[in-house]
Amino acid sequence: MIKHALAVTRAADFAAWYQAVVAEADMAEDSGVRGCMVMRPWGYGIWERIQRLLDARIRDLGYDNCYFPLFIPLSYFEKEAQHVEGFAKEMAVVTHHRLIPDGKGGLIPDPSAKLEEPLIVRPTSETVIGAGFSRWIQSWRDLPVQINQWANIVRWEMRTRMFLRTAEFLWQEGHAAYAGADQARDETMKALDLYRDFAETCCAMPVIAGEKPEHERFPGAVATWSIEAMMQDGKALQAGTSHFLGTHFADAQNIRFQNAEGQFALANTISWGMSTRMIGGLIMTHGDDDGLRVPPRVAPWQVVIVPMLRDVPEDAALIDYCRDLQRHLAAAGAFGEPLRVQLDLKAARPATKRWGWVKKGAPIVIEVGARDMASGNVSVIRRDRLYREDGKLNSTAIPLGEFVAGAAAMLEAIQAELFAEAKARLDRGIIRDIASFAALAAHFGGEGDAGWAEVAWARPTGAELDALVERLKPLKVSVRNAPLDQAPAEGACLFTGRPAVERILIGRAY
Amino acid sequence: MIKHALAVTRAADFAAWYQAVVAEADMAEDSGVRGCMVMRPWGYGIWERIQRLLDARIRDLGYDNCYFPLFIPLSYFEKEAQHVEGFAKEMAVVTHHRLIPDGKGGLIPDPSAKLEEPLIVRPTSETVIGAGFSRWIQSWRDLPVQINQWANIVRWEMRTRMFLRTAEFLWQEGHAAYAGADQARDETMKALDLYRDFAETCCAMPVIAGEKPEHERFPGAVATWSIEAMMQDGKALQAGTSHFLGTHFADAQNIRFQNAEGQFALANTISWGMSTRMIGGLIMTHGDDDGLRVPPRVAPWQVVIVPMLRDVPEDAALIDYCRDLQRHLAAAGAFGEPLRVQLDLKAARPATKRWGWVKKGAPIVIEVGARDMASGNVSVIRRDRLYREDGKLNSTAIPLGEFVAGAAAMLEAIQAELFAEAKARLDRGIIRDIASFAALAAHFGGEGDAGWAEVAWARPTGAELDALVERLKPLKVSVRNAPLDQAPAEGACLFTGRPAVERILIGRAY
Repeated sequence: MIKHALAVTRAADFAAWYQAVVAEADMAEDSGVRGCMVMRPWGYGIWERIQRLLDARIRDLGYDNCYFPLFIPLSYFEKEAQHVEGFAKEMAVVTHHRLIPDGKGGLIPDPSAKLEEPLIVRPTSETVIGAGFSRWIQSWRDLPVQINQWANIVRWEMRTRMFLRTAEFLWQEGHAAYAGADQARDETMKALDLYRDFAETCCAMPVIAGEKPEHERFPGAVATWSIEAMMQDGKALQAGTSHFLGTHFADAQNIRFQNAEGQFALANTISWGMSTRMIGGLIMTHGDDDGLRVPPRVAPWQVVIVPMLRDVPEDAALIDYCRDLQRHLAAAGAFGEPLRVQLDLKAARPATKRWGWVKKGAPIVIEVGARDMASGNVSVIRRDRLYREDGKLNSTAIPLGEFVAGAAAMLEAIQAELFAEAKARLDRGIIRDIASFAALAAHFGGEGDAGWAEVAWARPTGAELDALVERLKPLKVSVRNAPLDQAPAEGACLFTGRPAVERILIGRAY
Repeated sequence: MIKHALAVTRAADFAAWYQAVVAEADMAEDSGVRGCMVMRPWGYGIWERIQRLLDARIRDLGYDNCYFPLFIPLSYFEKEAQHVEGFAKEMAVVTHHRLIPDGKGGLIPDPSAKLEEPLIVRPTSETVIGAGFSRWIQSWRDLPVQINQWANIVRWEMRTRMFLRTAEFLWQEGHAAYAGADQARDETMKALDLYRDFAETCCAMPVIAGEKPEHERFPGAVATWSIEAMMQDGKALQAGTSHFLGTHFADAQNIRFQNAEGQFALANTISWGMSTRMIGGLIMTHGDDDGLRVPPRVAPWQVVIVPMLRDVPEDAALIDYCRDLQRHLAAAGAFGEPLRVQLDLKAARPATKRWGWVKKGAPIVIEVGARDMASGNVSVIRRDRLYREDGKLNSTAIPLGEFVAGAAAMLEAIQAELFAEAKARLDRGIIRDIASFAALAAHFGGEGDAGWAEVAWARPTGAELDALVERLKPLKVSVRNAPLDQAPAEGACLFTGRPAVERILIGRAY
């Protein structure tokens, strides 16, 4: 029986386990400000890695980074009716621009500094960026415009969970305008595929890309696509979305251009976003009962060296040996970047440090003691193979030179291993032979991990779709998306009995 | 007589020239949201370069990046009296968390969704980060704590100017806690020196580092230091500040630790920040009548290649030739990083593109025409040597291989040249022989560029200092700082007649 590093296991209480990883891996903590978290160095460091890798891909797609205001005048929201309906609800509203003493030692908003028009803290930036597009775009020659923004976003959530749902979160939002609808749709799909590739390649997180049903579209969108990842409790996490907005926002914000024939036309716009929610997804995809396991590509440190210091004069030589190792590793590359290696010289017991890095999920932890040094070795712990079959810690002594020469390949193997493990779980977790609503209800009737069901439907809309949603509610499941990559739909729609036109994924979700 | 690229010159109207550079170089524009700007790709690209270079230095200093909430509860501000006094004035106040229809087709803040405690959009984060320090720090073993945050900041400025003073701006804020005051002071100075080195090395902006006078301290600080740069109109720009906060914030927020002897003590904290204001400083330091000149280290593109396309079949070969050049340059390094090279294939006239890049201030613009290709050459324009003595554009044909081999050295030369030019201006611009207040008044009596005066003073405080400030006001000048690197103060204080103890810089400022 292995004694794991966390006090709670996934099997015992998945939600409590998640909170334990967030806390024990120094990812984030409550800030004391309602619904807002503090992202601590390890959590924020993973976000910085995500930023760097995603940003390079976004640039390769031809987008330029910009920065638009945090505040959006209320009137901007009133322009696009569906957008108002969907967003103009739970938002932070700035109404005053000054504080004055309240006469009792405290402060109050100054009644004489009330804003004429309230400002909304951006819940997304279509409206304010659309106003920019309207200024920038006059002629077909100005198109396409493709910009990206890294920003903080506020949505006043009532029930919050670290990374997964917080009042303030960080994200990237791509916005683009094109002359034609077909091109805009194509580019929406390119963004979606960028997300799929990023999630799978960098985060080792297999996903299913597909179209969201009508009732889960972004407010104001013509169509919304998502990537959905399966967490270890079988629930879905929507990890990125890409929206084809048609001419809705262009119409509301006057984004129009003169085409080559001199006629005026509305531009077609798209938007797409991925957020710090992805970090919650990493935890629930790769975490185990000893903490997080960070895929090497997004790990702030890929290799951490822990010297077994004993507060003796010999420590100096040991530190030199470790610095040498650090230097050699830093000079090595992995995944086409310099290898990220940390030498942990903090004042703490080596075992405490080891388990700290295990809980954080550093891909490789190297321990170096006097005996290792004497024989020219290092002791290597791979985070994805933490225990031997006998339940003992799986630490292997390897000659230093051999480890350095093979470090990049080992990191690549860990990245591949984490992906393969998650992919196998995803594949196992989707049931495809449910042919009736009764069978669906039976499948999702319990409380445990029922994974996802891929079923055929007739793509109902409007009231018929609303009724379907109501039928799914007691099962606590929802339509995730209609996978792009799917077998032909056959037979009858599970909900309407009419001939099926496509297959959709149904499951519980975060 | 040279016809410059901008419609207004520095000499004719410096303020209008500044706005022209911001607009013509695609740096930023009005957003339509009061006091907030849109940072466009070239302006934001420079900020990203600043971030990358500054971030690496901050990490080298031993700081970890974190992210704290955008919102700060009002009560946090009420804890530190001076901080309230200094900051709790012009700030954006969030009072509601929901909008509802107003019944007339518009939206209003929902009266039933009024926050019990208003939230302030952070004007700086000492209070909310201090609350974090209070949770993190229990024992001397937890010290030092050194964290940095990249964030957006809001201060409700009444009169705004792009980059220099905007309601929302972007910055980096370093925050640290130490056991002792001496160590905290030392670290405050290390941060200051980091800023000096960064400004000079990366931004080619010579600065004078020194201590701010008592009345210009950060609210709640024991001492504040700044780096001050001289703009081309002789005014000072405070380009970065570093604050020793003593135990003021620790006392207000209960940041205390048990020392090795088991006694409880308050930590000493420091904070330091540099913002997008730096970009305004770059413009006013290096801009000329043709636009911006970006120092190569912070230029988003260091070399831009403009093929002289003529819409003929031969264009294809020309583009191949340019792609080859781009590939060779990208493989070359400059300043220890890959060289950043852009091939401009946009649909516009080559001359329009050339002048576009001149206005943006790309350090080197390469034009390649059919004749260049035929002779294996490229035509090179150095942005810092734009015109020949006869006033003609200074474009030089160089063999392609020779240009590639020398590109890094040319970029280094441009970086050095821009610094030397600014340094000479700073040195010329400081007058040191003013010995009476009358002489000072005479020197700053006019409206033109009077540079700065370094004068001796007795370091008055309190009411005496207030009186001094009042005397300076009609001259429209202020005390910038007391340079760290200064000759011994001799003679009498210019203001009090008492023996001088140090020398201070006086000048107009942004």
